[in-house]
Amino acid sequence: MSRVRVHNFSVSLDGFGTGEGQHLDSPFGHAGSRLHEWFFRTRTFRGMHLESGGDLGVDDAMARAWEAGIGAEIMGRNKFGPQRGPWEDDKWTGWWGTNPPFHTPVFVMTHHPRPSIEMEGGTTFHFIDATPQEALRIAREAAGGLDVRIGGGPRTVREFLAADLVDHLHVAVVPIVLGRGERLWDGLEGLENRFRVESVTTPSGITHLTFTRP
Amino acid sequence: MSRVRVHNFSVSLDGFGTGEGQHLDSPFGHAGSRLHEWFFRTRTFRGMHLESGGDLGVDDAMARAWEAGIGAEIMGRNKFGPQRGPWEDDKWTGWWGTNPPFHTPVFVMTHHPRPSIEMEGGTTFHFIDATPQEALRIAREAAGGLDVRIGGGPRTVREFLAADLVDHLHVAVVPIVLGRGERLWDGLEGLENRFRVESVTTPSGITHLTFTRP
Repeated sequence: MSRVRVHNFSVSLDGFGTGEGQHLDSPFGHAGSRLHEWFFRTRTFRGMHLESGGDLGVDDAMARAWEAGIGAEIMGRNKFGPQRGPWEDDKWTGWWGTNPPFHTPVFVMTHHPRPSIEMEGGTTFHFIDATPQEALRIAREAAGGLDVRIGGGPRTVREFLAADLVDHLHVAVVPIVLGRGERLWDGLEGLENRFRVESVTTPSGITHLTFTRP
Repeated sequence: MSRVRVHNFSVSLDGFGTGEGQHLDSPFGHAGSRLHEWFFRTRTFRGMHLESGGDLGVDDAMARAWEAGIGAEIMGRNKFGPQRGPWEDDKWTGWWGTNPPFHTPVFVMTHHPRPSIEMEGGTTFHFIDATPQEALRIAREAAGGLDVRIGGGPRTVREFLAADLVDHLHVAVVPIVLGRGERLWDGLEGLENRFRVESVTTPSGITHLTFTRP
């Protein structure tokens, strides 16, 4: 059965999944790279970007679970790019260069649809104006029986959790106090009751939490 | 040199140190006992309340650090009791029975001072209307060269952290989403920069974080 999964979603101790002030040269706003340094160091991340090297170990093992068995991704428009409102032109094709690391159909949720973009390496961006339930139905169809990843950002993950559409959630708690930005946990009181929760801290100081539907 | 320490301070994933709706029969509001179950199970907690039994292990080791070398405690009025505003009478002597687990002077910060209360076992509650700096000066004098514990609740800990008066902070992150209550981390952006931060998860699922001034 096709599952809905969230992986490698970093939050600060105060629950922010991204900082304030997203911009072309700061995808995570004032958080900079602080929420994702653990991830950037992994062999998994380096491999996603066709680079060699990177650390093995528990952080890498947690990061690597991102890929296996995924047939489509759903992401929010704010993950796709820093623009807001109607698209000014069709030039923006995401943060990830000509060969994005997804290698599947990716459904970008936006109130401003535009033509699909076929990238190198099997990634195609589709733009849909849909509820979480509708987006999931479309993505499941495209995934051909494989799992669907909810890729972020915080608001998108929160909406899918609030609608009880997520079967597996991996959160990496980074021991910093970000102070401002977009919160993950808002409106999710009692979330833990729907899941089996596991946690492990690694030597990098990151605490990996998994919420898995029993 | 006398240090200022916070121990066994539990917060939810969304950063709440207590729930909403503190009441005589619910000191932590709608959080109930969920933030402190790990602590109640320890031998340290049982011993504080003159009971035998309780678990040993890492949670207990972390809990036990609470006691050694402490000469005075400072707490907020909301930790001392559920009343707000002027005291109606002098009957309330805290949540902890006739022999509270502190066994030192305890300074309760309140805008409504009242006479000190001498309890069994060496605990005396003093009521002071003071800034964090003033309260600390008074508590240090009473501590006779030993350390001063900041006992909570969330607002009091936050105020002492904001004033950069804390040398050691132990936070236990409980993997629940509380949704509402009093937040610990608000206004403390970049807190981690002032401390050496360590973290460890125990089999209970709790992540113990320590912030220690280098």
